[in-house]
Amino acid sequence: MVKFEEIDAFFKPDRVAIIGASKSLLGGGGIFLNSLMEMGFPDIIPVNPNEDEILGLKAYPTVGAIPGQVDYAIVAVPARIVPKVIGDCVEKGVKVAHIFTSGFSELAEEGGKELEDELLRVADGKTRIIGPNCMGIYCPESKLSYLPGSSPESGSVSLISQSGRYATFILIMTSQFGVKYNKIISVGNSCDLDATDFLEYLGEDPDTKTIAMYAEGVKDGKKFLNVLKEVSKKKPVIIWKGGRTEEGSMAAASHTGSLAGSNLLWESVFKQTGVIQVKSLDEMIDAIVAFNNLPPISGRNVAIITGGGGETVTSADACSDEGLYLKQFSDRTKWELENTLTIPGTIHRNPVDYSSMGSSPGILRKVTKIVVSDDNVDAVIVLLFVGPAILKAMMGSSIVSQFTSGEAPDESTTSRLLDQFIKLSINDLIRTNKDIDKPMVVVSPMMDAEPSTVAKLQNAGIPVYPSFERALKALSRFISYHEFLEKL
Amino acid sequence: MVKFEEIDAFFKPDRVAIIGASKSLLGGGGIFLNSLMEMGFPDIIPVNPNEDEILGLKAYPTVGAIPGQVDYAIVAVPARIVPKVIGDCVEKGVKVAHIFTSGFSELAEEGGKELEDELLRVADGKTRIIGPNCMGIYCPESKLSYLPGSSPESGSVSLISQSGRYATFILIMTSQFGVKYNKIISVGNSCDLDATDFLEYLGEDPDTKTIAMYAEGVKDGKKFLNVLKEVSKKKPVIIWKGGRTEEGSMAAASHTGSLAGSNLLWESVFKQTGVIQVKSLDEMIDAIVAFNNLPPISGRNVAIITGGGGETVTSADACSDEGLYLKQFSDRTKWELENTLTIPGTIHRNPVDYSSMGSSPGILRKVTKIVVSDDNVDAVIVLLFVGPAILKAMMGSSIVSQFTSGEAPDESTTSRLLDQFIKLSINDLIRTNKDIDKPMVVVSPMMDAEPSTVAKLQNAGIPVYPSFERALKALSRFISYHEFLEKL
Repeated sequence: MVKFEEIDAFFKPDRVAIIGASKSLLGGGGIFLNSLMEMGFPDIIPVNPNEDEILGLKAYPTVGAIPGQVDYAIVAVPARIVPKVIGDCVEKGVKVAHIFTSGFSELAEEGGKELEDELLRVADGKTRIIGPNCMGIYCPESKLSYLPGSSPESGSVSLISQSGRYATFILIMTSQFGVKYNKIISVGNSCDLDATDFLEYLGEDPDTKTIAMYAEGVKDGKKFLNVLKEVSKKKPVIIWKGGRTEEGSMAAASHTGSLAGSNLLWESVFKQTGVIQVKSLDEMIDAIVAFNNLPPISGRNVAIITGGGGETVTSADACSDEGLYLKQFSDRTKWELENTLTIPGTIHRNPVDYSSMGSSPGILRKVTKIVVSDDNVDAVIVLLFVGPAILKAMMGSSIVSQFTSGEAPDESTTSRLLDQFIKLSINDLIRTNKDIDKPMVVVSPMMDAEPSTVAKLQNAGIPVYPSFERALKALSRFISYHEFLEKL
Repeated sequence: MVKFEEIDAFFKPDRVAIIGASKSLLGGGGIFLNSLMEMGFPDIIPVNPNEDEILGLKAYPTVGAIPGQVDYAIVAVPARIVPKVIGDCVEKGVKVAHIFTSGFSELAEEGGKELEDELLRVADGKTRIIGPNCMGIYCPESKLSYLPGSSPESGSVSLISQSGRYATFILIMTSQFGVKYNKIISVGNSCDLDATDFLEYLGEDPDTKTIAMYAEGVKDGKKFLNVLKEVSKKKPVIIWKGGRTEEGSMAAASHTGSLAGSNLLWESVFKQTGVIQVKSLDEMIDAIVAFNNLPPISGRNVAIITGGGGETVTSADACSDEGLYLKQFSDRTKWELENTLTIPGTIHRNPVDYSSMGSSPGILRKVTKIVVSDDNVDAVIVLLFVGPAILKAMMGSSIVSQFTSGEAPDESTTSRLLDQFIKLSINDLIRTNKDIDKPMVVVSPMMDAEPSTVAKLQNAGIPVYPSFERALKALSRFISYHEFLEKL
């Protein structure tokens, strides 16, 4: 087992050398220099034998030439020079390094494996390595980043990814849903430290509450299983296994040189250990958003509040697909719904249809409160409309009558009134969510058309999904993890 | 069987009466009056006993009071008055009517079924009816619409929906992907004409090339099966069955009064008849987009072109899930790829990684042409980046070097260069698509951030999906239908 402190050193450097830095934005050296400067990392030292100064920072020809201590080296030089540079790092006493450069074990046929072995031999356990062929570390608290434009704010989710691309995609896409990260580690070929080492570390890390992982293979299956067992008891571990099919596994060999291993074996490991398994980028994002936001939950009985009849039918189908139950409401709840939803076309059973085209603002809040108070309900899923096209369609609906005398308002008045209506609905949901201790999830088809609306809900801790299917799948996974914990 | 001409009359009226029209935008009468005026329908007659004139049109107290012939009546009056109004229509010789009003068989316990029976008795087969409890007809060629802001342009897809809401959602959401409709029929409770009747009609309709359907139940299962068998041989029929689970089926009874029937029975009907079955709104939209755009295809061998290693792995997994094959390329293709993709990190097997972060503009076109010329390839799936966050991340990549001397450009220059790069890539794909006769599909995560880019591809007939999983599922369904046709 790698010591906690050895890995912790990656996330707490005082001085970072970027070997292969350049002022241009081209190539890895430029990306990392710019990302760290943008984050405001205080002590960056560019290393480049051809420059005296880069973007206002004094540059040195080698890491050995830097006066004083260097804590962390980011290496972005051509592959054949990497072993020499790592040798310099060892000599300089650099404890940890990230190797961005590709062209190692993923190119087995072209001598890449031998180059990787050489570099590992040179490092000699004295300089611990992330990579090669990866993006390294994003840790906003320490002002480390591999992505220009990434958030400086720290959160409680941490991610380990064997793909640099997915490390970037997942960060960007979940950020849109208000997720903030504590640490992201893009591990690439994992010649020294691998996903298992970081998983073990994150299990101990008090700042990490949820762990997500994209993995194509691990070096030591048995060790991975043991670590998973321990960590999963303490915090949720969401895993997307790349190469879970024969076709994918063949592709993985070309990507990170991983032997993806038997899918059946992985599946059985996931089941044993309470891991939350996801099977696509969307499922990964949806699961992270759920675990990032929702309060603990004790059962699989959900209530669904839709705005139209077709949705009561298809959301019930989706519930059944995900193993969630639509228990019928208590008599009291039914009675209250009947007295609240009085216009024709509303449906008072579970799933409820509150008729979003015909109801007055404020009704959504009332209905949600009634439903969530029912003892037969463990979580509530609410459909909310946003999106200009839907709004336009709603122009002809009676919600307008809440604000006008019944005369047809002009287009700009209508827009303003509808904006007001949407704001009211959203504020209603946010207020209701504060009052209750059961998970609430919002479904909003065409949510992308209204990013500010979605952001408002997300920032209030309410996950928003584009479809019932995605919402219910994520919720079901969230519940499964809590069931796993209860059985321990 | 209902005569073709009887149903055809719905789509070719010269004069439409809107019974229950009002100048205000509140309620159905207002929605339809405004929609038809917006579409430019030439001869609309509002009927309202309290008004002499509505929005500049002369109004009449009853349909009987209208001088001359009335072809089509839209009925939006309270439920209890509907039978009387339909009686007036019969007397006036109105051949077809759409009843918007709800509160009929979907409220079985409150006498709704009896009211529906009465209205059917009054209509007496002389006035044929769509509804009640539905949106009626969208047919841009005839300037009929139920949705303010809908497109006036006609296409070749037709849709039958038992949910008015999904009739609206599917129209709006697929329109974003360039789909244009020939006819949409929202059938609601289907007291007279039902989904089967319209399916039979659309099978004969020369302007309809693809049929999509959202159905919760049909009145006569055997007739439906026979019609499906005939129609499906002639054109693709995509069906989303609401209430395919026990939970959903219970909800369907409250929605349109449908007895949803046994799921196993429906599934077996779909298999027998070559129906393309979808199970969610997203799947429905994805399938419509595929069938609307793609040229015929003869096999299940696909090539995937991605921009990063992780995607080669997970897209191969998704291929396997959907029963698609990643046959390896011919020696010639491999040789050509090796000589075209020369930078480190590119992958020359199937799935290809062309390294979107490092490659020059123009490379995507070359790679696509090489791959698609391979006899082992029946269709090609290409990953394309769009979305501002990804662009920002690409700021640091070497694509910039194609345009600059290698110096770091300022932010506005970078933006301009990246816009240029994206435009080049898109134009490349559109030109390549014109040169080839195999299906091409584009995957673009975060596509919603760049609607104009997506629209450009869609307008050129290239379907764009937000994920490999969704693209491959839609493509697989498209191929399955062609396999079904070949076996006939």
